[in-house]
Amino acid sequence: MTEQRHILDESLQLRESGAGTLTGQAPTGYGNMVGVFGGNTAAVLVQAAWQHPDRQGEPVGVTVNFASPLAPGDFSVMPRIIRTNRSTQHFAIEIHQNEQPTTTATAVFANRSETWSSTEASIPDVPPADQVPVVAPLPVAWAQNYELRFVAGALPEFVEFDSQVGQSPESTTTMWIRDWPERPLDFAAVAAICDTFYPRVFLRRGQAVPAGTVSMTVYFHVGSDVLAAQGSNPVLATASATTFNRNYFDQQAQIWGTDGTLLATSHQLVYFKA
Amino acid sequence: MTEQRHILDESLQLRESGAGTLTGQAPTGYGNMVGVFGGNTAAVLVQAAWQHPDRQGEPVGVTVNFASPLAPGDFSVMPRIIRTNRSTQHFAIEIHQNEQPTTTATAVFANRSETWSSTEASIPDVPPADQVPVVAPLPVAWAQNYELRFVAGALPEFVEFDSQVGQSPESTTTMWIRDWPERPLDFAAVAAICDTFYPRVFLRRGQAVPAGTVSMTVYFHVGSDVLAAQGSNPVLATASATTFNRNYFDQQAQIWGTDGTLLATSHQLVYFKA
Repeated sequence: MTEQRHILDESLQLRESGAGTLTGQAPTGYGNMVGVFGGNTAAVLVQAAWQHPDRQGEPVGVTVNFASPLAPGDFSVMPRIIRTNRSTQHFAIEIHQNEQPTTTATAVFANRSETWSSTEASIPDVPPADQVPVVAPLPVAWAQNYELRFVAGALPEFVEFDSQVGQSPESTTTMWIRDWPERPLDFAAVAAICDTFYPRVFLRRGQAVPAGTVSMTVYFHVGSDVLAAQGSNPVLATASATTFNRNYFDQQAQIWGTDGTLLATSHQLVYFKA
Repeated sequence: MTEQRHILDESLQLRESGAGTLTGQAPTGYGNMVGVFGGNTAAVLVQAAWQHPDRQGEPVGVTVNFASPLAPGDFSVMPRIIRTNRSTQHFAIEIHQNEQPTTTATAVFANRSETWSSTEASIPDVPPADQVPVVAPLPVAWAQNYELRFVAGALPEFVEFDSQVGQSPESTTTMWIRDWPERPLDFAAVAAICDTFYPRVFLRRGQAVPAGTVSMTVYFHVGSDVLAAQGSNPVLATASATTFNRNYFDQQAQIWGTDGTLLATSHQLVYFKA
C-alpha cells in the first residue's frame, strides 16, 4: 500500500452548503477529451447520495445522464430523496455548474439480505493480473489514475482522427484494472470503473471518431462487505457493444472481483459519428 | 387490422393541466399483481416527454424507477426539460399519485442521422411467429393486452407460491409478442414490451416468489420510421438474467423486429425474495 492519497478521495470531498446542496470540485486530474471523466461524475453522484443524512442502505442501481460536459472546478450536487420504503430508497440527483444543470441521475439504495444466489454470466477466461503487463495509460488525464492491463481489445495503437489502423470484427475489451495509487474498492470506485472503457466504436472502426456517453446505468450486485474484501486488488472488467446505428451505440459491461464474484454490471448509451 | 382501439392508446391520453403537468388515468386493464403494469408506466413516461411542446427529436434512452406501485386511477406526470443541446435533449420526469411521487424517470431524446452501422448481437434462431402457438395470457390483467407466443422459457405451468415445479438451469425466455388487438408499433409500445417478461427468478426457481422491478432502462436503437415499418407484426423479445444475489437480480432484454433489426435493448434491476 502506498501512502499517497488517490485523487478519487479528493474528488469525493463534498461539503454541505445548505438546503440539501453539496459542493465539490472536479479535479483537472480527471480531465477527459472534453470536460471531466464521466466515471468520476458517477462516483460523485454515488457519494452525494451516500452522505445524505437520511440515507438508508447501500446503492443497488444508479443511472447518470450526461446532459453537458462538467468542467474541472466547482460544482454543486443536490441529492433529493424521492421516497423511502421498507427496504428501498429512491434518489433523484442533479449536478449544476455555473447555475446550469450538467448532469441528472437517479439512484436506488436498498437494505439487502442473504437469499438464494446464482450467477449465469461466465467470467472471461483470462490469465491472472500479475501475468498481464501494465500498459501506459490512455492518452487522457483521467487514465493516469488507473493501473490498466489489457487482456483483449486494447486501444488500437496510434489511433488518431483520420488514421485508420484496422477495423475489428467485434467490440470486446477485457482488462484488469484498479485505482492507482492503490485504493480499497468501494461503490464510488466501481461506478467510475464502469466508465473506463474507451469508446467501443474506436475498436470497431480502428480509429478515433467523435464519441461521448449520454447515459450510463450501473447495477451493484454485492454489498460493501464484498467490495471491502476485494481491497485494492485489480478487478476484471469486460465490455462490448450490442449495436451501432444512427449516431448511437450501446455498451454492456461486467466488473468481476479477483475471486470470481460478479461485482457490478453496467450499460451505456454512447453518441458517435462515423 | 381490427377496429377495436388498444387500451394502450387510452392510457396514453395525457391532458395538460397547467404548469407543465399532465394528467392521465391508469386503466384497471393494465393491473398487475401489485398496482399497474410497469411497462405501461414506462410507455406513459415516453409519451409525456414526447408531447412536451419543446420536445426535440426522438427517444434514444429512458430509465424508469418504480419507487412505489402506481394504482389504477388518476395520476399526474411532470416532464421537465433539463437541457437541450444541438442534437440531444435531456428530460427528468416524475409521476405523482395522491400528491406522492410514485415514479422517477430520466429520458434522452436525440436527432439521429445515418451513420456506419453494425449489430454484434445475434438474433435468436427461432421459427417464425406464425409457426409458434399463441398461449393463454399470463394470469395478470395486463397480459390480456398482448398476443404471446413462447419460443423458449415459457412460464412454468401451474406456478404457485409454495409449489415448486422444477428449477431451470438458466433464465432465458424468448417469445414473439405484439399488442393485442393489433396496434402499430411505436416508442411507447416498445418501452412497454421491454417489461413483459415474467420475473426471471420464477423460471430459475420453478415457482413464483415475491419479485418486483425497481428500475428499468430502455435504449432505442432505431427511429420512428423503422418502428412504423414494423407495423403490427410480432416482435421477437428475449431476456435473461446475469446474476441473482441478496434480494436483487438483473435482466437484460433485446427486442428484434420481424426483419431481424434490433429495435431496442433493455435492462432491469428486480427485487426478489427466495
